[in-house]
Amino acid sequence: MPNMPSIPQQSQHAALLLNCDLGESFGSWQMGLDSQAMPYIDQANIACGFHAGDADVIKRTLTLAKQHSVTIGAHPSYPDLQGFGRRSMQCSEQEIINLMHYQIAALDGMAQCQGLQLSYIKPHGALYNDMMSKPTVWQAVLQAVASYYKPLKLMILATNEAEQYQQQASTLGVTLLLEAFADRRYTDQGKLTPRTQPGAVLHGSEVLQQVQQLLNYGSVTTESGKALPLHADTLCVHGDNLAAISQLQQIRELINRCQQ
Amino acid sequence: MPNMPSIPQQSQHAALLLNCDLGESFGSWQMGLDSQAMPYIDQANIACGFHAGDADVIKRTLTLAKQHSVTIGAHPSYPDLQGFGRRSMQCSEQEIINLMHYQIAALDGMAQCQGLQLSYIKPHGALYNDMMSKPTVWQAVLQAVASYYKPLKLMILATNEAEQYQQQASTLGVTLLLEAFADRRYTDQGKLTPRTQPGAVLHGSEVLQQVQQLLNYGSVTTESGKALPLHADTLCVHGDNLAAISQLQQIRELINRCQQ
Amino acid sequence: MPNMPSIPQQSQHAALLLNCDLGESFGSWQMGLDSQAMPYIDQANIACGFHAGDADVIKRTLTLAKQHSVTIGAHPSYPDLQGFGRRSMQCSEQEIINLMHYQIAALDGMAQCQGLQLSYIKPHGALYNDMMSKPTVWQAVLQAVASYYKPLKLMILATNEAEQYQQQASTLGVTLLLEAFADRRYTDQGKLTPRTQPGAVLHGSEVLQQVQQLLNYGSVTTESGKALPLHADTLCVHGDNLAAISQLQQIRELINRCQQ
Amino acid sequence: MPNMPSIPQQSQHAALLLNCDLGESFGSWQMGLDSQAMPYIDQANIACGFHAGDADVIKRTLTLAKQHSVTIGAHPSYPDLQGFGRRSMQCSEQEIINLMHYQIAALDGMAQCQGLQLSYIKPHGALYNDMMSKPTVWQAVLQAVASYYKPLKLMILATNEAEQYQQQASTLGVTLLLEAFADRRYTDQGKLTPRTQPGAVLHGSEVLQQVQQLLNYGSVTTESGKALPLHADTLCVHGDNLAAISQLQQIRELINRCQQ
Repeated sequence: MPNMPSIPQQSQHAALLLNCDLGESFGSWQMGLDSQAMPYIDQANIACGFHAGDADVIKRTLTLAKQHSVTIGAHPSYPDLQGFGRRSMQCSEQEIINLMHYQIAALDGMAQCQGLQLSYIKPHGALYNDMMSKPTVWQAVLQAVASYYKPLKLMILATNEAEQYQQQASTLGVTLLLEAFADRRYTDQGKLTPRTQPGAVLHGSEVLQQVQQLLNYGSVTTESGKALPLHADTLCVHGDNLAAISQLQQIRELINRCQQ
Repeated sequence: MPNMPSIPQQSQHAALLLNCDLGESFGSWQMGLDSQAMPYIDQANIACGFHAGDADVIKRTLTLAKQHSVTIGAHPSYPDLQGFGRRSMQCSEQEIINLMHYQIAALDGMAQCQGLQLSYIKPHGALYNDMMSKPTVWQAVLQAVASYYKPLKLMILATNEAEQYQQQASTLGVTLLLEAFADRRYTDQGKLTPRTQPGAVLHGSEVLQQVQQLLNYGSVTTESGKALPLHADTLCVHGDNLAAISQLQQIRELINRCQQ
Repeated sequence: MPNMPSIPQQSQHAALLLNCDLGESFGSWQMGLDSQAMPYIDQANIACGFHAGDADVIKRTLTLAKQHSVTIGAHPSYPDLQGFGRRSMQCSEQEIINLMHYQIAALDGMAQCQGLQLSYIKPHGALYNDMMSKPTVWQAVLQAVASYYKPLKLMILATNEAEQYQQQASTLGVTLLLEAFADRRYTDQGKLTPRTQPGAVLHGSEVLQQVQQLLNYGSVTTESGKALPLHADTLCVHGDNLAAISQLQQIRELINRCQQ
Repeated sequence: MPNMPSIPQQSQHAALLLNCDLGESFGSWQMGLDSQAMPYIDQANIACGFHAGDADVIKRTLTLAKQHSVTIGAHPSYPDLQGFGRRSMQCSEQEIINLMHYQIAALDGMAQCQGLQLSYIKPHGALYNDMMSKPTVWQAVLQAVASYYKPLKLMILATNEAEQYQQQASTLGVTLLLEAFADRRYTDQGKLTPRTQPGAVLHGSEVLQQVQQLLNYGSVTTESGKALPLHADTLCVHGDNLAAISQLQQIRELINRCQQ
């Protein structure tokens, strides 16, 4: 792990929120420790039934989010239950807009049945990756959010090209939420180091150190050891297993301490 | 066919609307002549993706309904694409509520994306039949509509037990739409003659005669030849093929003439 | 728990096999401790993709069965992934035959790709229950097995009506495998005590006692304390969690000891 | 349309078979005039349930093929009912092998239930296109066919690189069937002119002319007017609508006349 570089002190950053993928069970299959993660997060990215989740799971997840006053986001995906939405599918722009509207609407209406308001959209899996790498998919996702009948924010990856994304989004009246990853190493170009590379995933104290640096300096230390400024509105955390929950609690405490 | 009985003249009935199941294509599979039926109907029961329809089909169907200023209803179903929602499934009451909310919400949100407002719910196929024959399913459907976040009407079969249904619905604040069938014979008990019976389905002039009688006298002639009073708000018509479209046009003309 | 009644000693029974539902993961969702259960069982009921399992899961499960020389059975179901095949669906007899053939064939061919031979069929969930309670479903299941292109056995519930089932099966040339449940209480009529009743599920030493009694006397002690003769070829055991695996090991040891 | 070039007379070719995609209905949705196409074709590519077809449709299609003594091929696809298998999905090689085995096996077993033997595999839609354009998909498809438990042929596009494909296939013991298209224009490189280009699809007499040329000279006239030698074992024809059936009949007569 690269050493923490000396970085000129910056002014305190705005609140760093914690977002987590939830509601990923399906039928009789359980996934994720949703009830253990929910108390520590600010934003729940809720699966909408195309890669995970079903009407019963969505209902339970919304109820849980309500109990803990967690902000709700829709987590739409390519239609691929078996592949958990992780396999890219060659959908047309219009197909992407429509499948996003369908999923967003399903979650939106079910949320309102519990008196909740949907706040943002975070594309899932391959749709998320395609959004960040294929301009036509990015345009389709942006159009989907912009043409939804009520204003919703769009969560995308915080990179050093954030400004370009924000310009395009603002043209269509869409507000972006930039998310960083607590447990992923960044390249000097502000991308995530691919998981196939050694050191791509951070562990234990490295994770907390990265969060601390984001909180204090608004930067991450890249794989080459550079301090890369990275504005993030929210931090993606996990709730898959007990180790993840434990780390989530530590991140929560760290943020609470810094933002008092 | 039984002869038209002599019936004491009644006061002119309120408008009799025409409703039709639409948006029943799926992916590459076409079903129904939606664009030919839409100009002649008042209410479109739009499939929500569980027995037919998908995000692309829903989008197109809503656009078509908008062009013709047709009122929009959601047509939710048991989750059974292969069986077209026609096979009864032993779902719990909570499962029925949730699967209805999911489907209603998906259509509701997609409608709002086109500036349209969802107006009513008509359960499809086996869910419709179970609603009319199994009290627990009826309760679940009613709860689903009542607990949706905005007021929606519920379309059910017009029978001579309509008053009991309406009492239960009004307790939960739900308005019913009673539908009659233009092309189905009724039993003396005000039920539909099962399709397995000879004469269960009316043809040609019989259909128009039944519509005329409903318009003039608010009654149908049952299989035994009796005139059975039957209040109906709406008439279920079909748009599956050219013969159905032709009949639909004739019914439309008949109603227009009577309701001038 | 009723006391063990005094039962006249019977001659030693034939081998009692252990069967277990396996391959019930789906996509990214894990279910069951298949690799921990496989070493202790004789027969693997492998999900075929309609209620659980997919091509990847089936492949892995077959490989595991091969490693442990476990006999392979197909575990076909109604088409209901979300409901895990536990919701009865009103399928026609022909639909049941076809959906069984499709699932059996898929597993059969994939087994042969690994040099394995499919041995028997055990319907899953609601299809199993319907088979035991609805004569038309029983006939359809029997026809499906009989009309498959190679001889396969059919596993059904061991009840005191086994002889009637066997007569009907033998007319069509189908051999039955009768299964008892290690952990379920039986009624005096030789049915399973419904799970809704107290004491329906046996625990700990009760389970081993029931297995012992089946091994020694070919009988179970019913809820009223009677000793009911019950011929079983195989015993349904579970591999869902560590407690189930531990119990499975104890049952295996007990059987090994008795059948030395 | 380019003029027919003068081509040196070649020796008469081996029989040119006609293959057609069939069994593409699903549930209540009809597609294709299967019963009208079946009498005129030699090989039926039968959908296996992942892009079209279900257990009931497969059963009926096999029965029809049997009546007309048509050779049976499996037509496996990516798992994408809504997209009709036309959207490329980023599946791993192992996933492709498994999903092909599952689909092939399902059809294979159902065919044997009617006393029929599966003869070949023709990947469908995006899987077919990916097989011809992505080496990893080609390898996966080849492996799937080679590792199936019985010898099956693999149908691929006849191009001028056929020899390389055949070498790789024969290494694994797989026999290829090369298919040409009656109604598609070819590039000088022996590829299909993309449908987006004008003149990509042939009509009426052009189709018959191309078939005639394949029969007489074993060549096609490319978009630039060149005569390109193209060895084809089989010709892909369509049965979607009455015009297609009529053309199919004409192609059948033409072949019958030439191959007397």
